[in-house]
Amino acid sequence: MLDKVQSSDIDTLMLAMGERARLAARKLAVASTDQKNKALNAAADAILSSVATILEANALDLEAVADKGLQPSFIDRLTLNEKRVTEMAEGLRAIAALPDPVGNVIADWERPNGLKIERVRTPLGVIGVIYESRPNVTADAGALCLKAGNAVILRGGSDSLNSSQAIHRCLSAGLRAAGLPEDSIQLVAIADRAAVGALLSGLNGAVDVIVPRGGKSLVARVQTEARVPVFAHLEGLCHIYVDASADLDMAVKVVVNAKMRRTGICGAAETLLVDRAVAATHLQLILSALIEKGCEVRASEEVSAQIEGLKAASEEDWRTEYLEAIISVKLVDGIDGAIEHINTYSSNHTEAVIAEDPQVVARFFNEIDSAILLHNASTQFADGGEFGMGGEIGIATGKMHARGPVGVEQLTSFKYRVHGTGQIRP
Amino acid sequence: MLDKVQSSDIDTLMLAMGERARLAARKLAVASTDQKNKALNAAADAILSSVATILEANALDLEAVADKGLQPSFIDRLTLNEKRVTEMAEGLRAIAALPDPVGNVIADWERPNGLKIERVRTPLGVIGVIYESRPNVTADAGALCLKAGNAVILRGGSDSLNSSQAIHRCLSAGLRAAGLPEDSIQLVAIADRAAVGALLSGLNGAVDVIVPRGGKSLVARVQTEARVPVFAHLEGLCHIYVDASADLDMAVKVVVNAKMRRTGICGAAETLLVDRAVAATHLQLILSALIEKGCEVRASEEVSAQIEGLKAASEEDWRTEYLEAIISVKLVDGIDGAIEHINTYSSNHTEAVIAEDPQVVARFFNEIDSAILLHNASTQFADGGEFGMGGEIGIATGKMHARGPVGVEQLTSFKYRVHGTGQIRP
Repeated sequence: MLDKVQSSDIDTLMLAMGERARLAARKLAVASTDQKNKALNAAADAILSSVATILEANALDLEAVADKGLQPSFIDRLTLNEKRVTEMAEGLRAIAALPDPVGNVIADWERPNGLKIERVRTPLGVIGVIYESRPNVTADAGALCLKAGNAVILRGGSDSLNSSQAIHRCLSAGLRAAGLPEDSIQLVAIADRAAVGALLSGLNGAVDVIVPRGGKSLVARVQTEARVPVFAHLEGLCHIYVDASADLDMAVKVVVNAKMRRTGICGAAETLLVDRAVAATHLQLILSALIEKGCEVRASEEVSAQIEGLKAASEEDWRTEYLEAIISVKLVDGIDGAIEHINTYSSNHTEAVIAEDPQVVARFFNEIDSAILLHNASTQFADGGEFGMGGEIGIATGKMHARGPVGVEQLTSFKYRVHGTGQIRP
Repeated sequence: MLDKVQSSDIDTLMLAMGERARLAARKLAVASTDQKNKALNAAADAILSSVATILEANALDLEAVADKGLQPSFIDRLTLNEKRVTEMAEGLRAIAALPDPVGNVIADWERPNGLKIERVRTPLGVIGVIYESRPNVTADAGALCLKAGNAVILRGGSDSLNSSQAIHRCLSAGLRAAGLPEDSIQLVAIADRAAVGALLSGLNGAVDVIVPRGGKSLVARVQTEARVPVFAHLEGLCHIYVDASADLDMAVKVVVNAKMRRTGICGAAETLLVDRAVAATHLQLILSALIEKGCEVRASEEVSAQIEGLKAASEEDWRTEYLEAIISVKLVDGIDGAIEHINTYSSNHTEAVIAEDPQVVARFFNEIDSAILLHNASTQFADGGEFGMGGEIGIATGKMHARGPVGVEQLTSFKYRVHGTGQIRP
């Protein structure tokens, strides 16, 4: 672990990594599907035969942070056990089993002059992934990038470095077994945060895109400092709107799921908007169901006037992604009010409408510009696996290139292939 | 013309423009196809009824640069006449006639739980277009952005400001006639280059993408300074490779067209690579045809040894986009040598292969990562119109979002619409 090197040395080391990644990416771009899958399956084998080694490395990481007084959730994410390591290997096999996006013809058409034009998927090139101390991301992110034919430079949280290195050795073994360059998946073994800065600079043009995986402060730093495109969401301030036309039973069930199934994920609902027209009949039932599940409700004045004993919501609440069992609640004037509130406070991640009126649904779908809009379904479906993408490296809220769940297809670019028979331009 | 204002004033003015564009974009995102087309057609009418005014404004611009000793090509691009103004109006009608990309379902599928997922095109938001003193770009770029539902901030070369303002007034009239916000198409009337700097900063998050239209120095400045994504190509250093399996007649015809049809466009060929195996039979014929058309040939030593009287190519020639009647020529060892040369020197814009051997074509298509690859066709087909896109705002060589010709579809983003019947996530 090189945590004492000079920052000029770090830049030099990182630039060399970028150069090696660029060269590996060229070879990966023409690697066959079989070869990439062989690498992934061999890496899964290596992980299964290295469980003891990986757990020993993880024990070292856990020991080193034992006295730091870290949050239980941090320790939980850092901790590996036999089950989690086995799941990591299964994850690699699942990614191997996905269709290879590279070479897919996305569109094709013929011109009047006989030219046949195809738009074909290609790898993006080199992807930088910056994540917190969650060692399993090493396998997961490395594999998704590789499947799409990209070289990847992984930079995990420094508290998980021993674990990540042990996992990374298994990925390298897989690449060797398949005859692919080991530089296809590189792990930054420099604890100094200057290494992150170097990666965010794009390593002299070697890095095509950065994917941060972690909490808001990590993503904010990446979005501010990166000099290359970033696939990310800063937060998932998801709304669920219950329209007057909603089926009340469905509304109760879906709202409770959207908020309470898992409160710590980006697709969890944070604000509930209820159509003022049905407040008298709907509000009590929905809020009681939430409270019964252990949810704290922070209510607008108008809601508090109808239902006693609720905490008051402040302006700040409409802007807060709780990631906890807390929800803010407000009455709105039908779909107009819902759209107005969401377009003011949304993080453009995911929003849901519960309604039977097709005109309400159409307006919700057209007039709100978030990556994912759902009708009569829980916001917690905002997930690449649930979308059928077979895994995701994250969810993006930007408008460029990838938006919503970022799976293997979203980790590709494309080029045009034009087939002629001697055509010249008049 | 505000060319004497302070730079802090410029920042303030530009930020206000960004804010107005952002508000207009929200309205445009939900504007109907009819409304957008009405604006474009009404703008075309306004241009046709303002020919005299536009030409007067243009005369002012031409007068102001008369003593500056500018290149004839610069003056030509700046000059309008009745025919060119009429063509501008026709261009607007042609864009109105294009299919509206917004709302198109790009993909849809159903999940085992019954959720129906659609990926639907949406506008990008706000586009900044920075161009040289070519007044017709004002109409052209403004219309393409509008058709895709985007607000646009146009900043043309300061020598064309009177002409651009006259054209812009017609676009504003079109927007008014259709009941769309006039801020949908704004023109920066500040000659100071600080206005460009402000636009490149992204105007506090208001600008989603920048499109530069112009020569290499403009694009280089934009690519270096922009803090938002850029759709552009720095240069079109296009290659054409004649394989041993080529049909010789076709090779002569296509090479001459690729280089000489128009030498000043980005899709013009700059380097010819000939398979060493057929140099003795092919080289003389191809080069003679080029020379006969008035092309200067800069040859590698090996080529010069076979054909007398050619100028010698230096290392610099392989890196030069001439944009003139000059071509560099080199012999290579078949497809391997061609790929090696192109992957070293290419600008990733457009490359063509002339070959009958399908394996050669397959390798050319797979192993070269340029935006456009052509087989047995001229590189001069690298154009949105020729691709059937009905117009383009430029050609992009980046790998993010848009690549190759950037037409109305490429000026969109997308979102997911998920239709449920009460699904909750288990």
